[in-house]
Amino acid sequence: MDKEKESLNTVGEEGEALTIEGRNAVIEAFRSGKTIDKLFILDGCKDGPISTILREAKKGDTIIKFVAKERLDQISATGKHQGVIAYAAAYKYSEVEDMLKLAKERGEDPFLIILDGIEDPHNLGAIIRTANQAGAHGVIIPKQRAVGLTATVARTSAGALNYTPVAKVTNIVRTMEELKKQGLWFVCADMDGEVMYKQNLTGPIGLVIGNEGEGVGRLVKETCDFTASIPMKGQIDSLNASVAAGILSYEIVRQRLNKK
Amino acid sequence: MDKEKESLNTVGEEGEALTIEGRNAVIEAFRSGKTIDKLFILDGCKDGPISTILREAKKGDTIIKFVAKERLDQISATGKHQGVIAYAAAYKYSEVEDMLKLAKERGEDPFLIILDGIEDPHNLGAIIRTANQAGAHGVIIPKQRAVGLTATVARTSAGALNYTPVAKVTNIVRTMEELKKQGLWFVCADMDGEVMYKQNLTGPIGLVIGNEGEGVGRLVKETCDFTASIPMKGQIDSLNASVAAGILSYEIVRQRLNKK
Repeated sequence: MDKEKESLNTVGEEGEALTIEGRNAVIEAFRSGKTIDKLFILDGCKDGPISTILREAKKGDTIIKFVAKERLDQISATGKHQGVIAYAAAYKYSEVEDMLKLAKERGEDPFLIILDGIEDPHNLGAIIRTANQAGAHGVIIPKQRAVGLTATVARTSAGALNYTPVAKVTNIVRTMEELKKQGLWFVCADMDGEVMYKQNLTGPIGLVIGNEGEGVGRLVKETCDFTASIPMKGQIDSLNASVAAGILSYEIVRQRLNKK
Repeated sequence: MDKEKESLNTVGEEGEALTIEGRNAVIEAFRSGKTIDKLFILDGCKDGPISTILREAKKGDTIIKFVAKERLDQISATGKHQGVIAYAAAYKYSEVEDMLKLAKERGEDPFLIILDGIEDPHNLGAIIRTANQAGAHGVIIPKQRAVGLTATVARTSAGALNYTPVAKVTNIVRTMEELKKQGLWFVCADMDGEVMYKQNLTGPIGLVIGNEGEGVGRLVKETCDFTASIPMKGQIDSLNASVAAGILSYEIVRQRLNKK
């Protein structure tokens, strides 16, 4: 993770530029109204998605540069630019309060996803993507020992980062305790918990997903109101973190749909 | 994908050696009884998982080499060796018949996952891992235009590749038609389908997941008996392929548990 951060010439933190790579991610960035400062496109590339990108770029003040593949490879932080790289203003982290406001605006019980130390940017990106589709109101990540909003996360989120708020907090436990005062219940993904189908996941909820290797930390687990497990029939230990987050998120979706 | 294949000094095809990287993946390989020919361990590394690996290695005829970090980085195909790389006999592809036999042995209706052109090795690995935990009897992939069982797939599967059969077929449609004669129904993951909660997914089933960019191909889709969709509440297009496979697989698990 640290290695990845170092290899980025631009880091996705407040105030700095962010590289967005790949066709879908760049198209989504334009569509969401994000300001793209500069666009690098593979010289000679003229297919449909690239034309869409160029059309969008010409609407704004985007500087467009047609460059050779070697130049793109050199700029690319992910190695998967698909012929297009955009420099955008950095993704802004949201506040937890914004998520509660979003839930209120939609007239829904809050549904937040709390990630206790996800390290793999592909997992974080996939979880933000899932959060968007499952109708979650935001994703909360810790400041320490976790991946932030890097270019790989932005690409893997397939545009969801433009719509789903992500907040970075100093202390997950303290944030959970504050949210409890506002009526949220916390369910912790844990193999030792009661099977998720038997839990009531329909109220204002925070779904807590642990680190890839170590699961949910002890203090965070103790702060949860209950634990829920995914039935595991296999011979191995666990599921991929982003897959587990997807399965649990959609159990919440299913139960909420059933309740209506 | 092709770039990754080229960068492997050993490729996971029949008859050739396979590199297994990372602690969990190597421990799982030993535990499943796989023959490890040679083991490279970071010199001076003595923690718990490494001790477990050394103990397992000494039971067999494994050649153990303690090497510097530079040497491991050089051998590594994934860049994520965590201080241990093993050379094992290659994963053998299974036959579709083996999967049906496995279902029969377990006294279960067959549950197969058919991947119509997954290109990302992380997705393939995560799906094999999910297949194992969801109790699927095997994963079928096409010979052409898809990633095979590379070292990255093995690592990302977190050991599941040792237990869950993977078959490689020339023609997905022909394989599906043969399986239909044996009583299987095919459900295609598709956004235009009826929502999955309303479908009956309890019988002998093949779950078809499409390519990351293009979804399920036209011919494969036409061969399916019905389509099922995951409810999408977000502003973006789709879910990550391995997350979608996980959510649909566990809807099958849930319905089968309910039926009992």
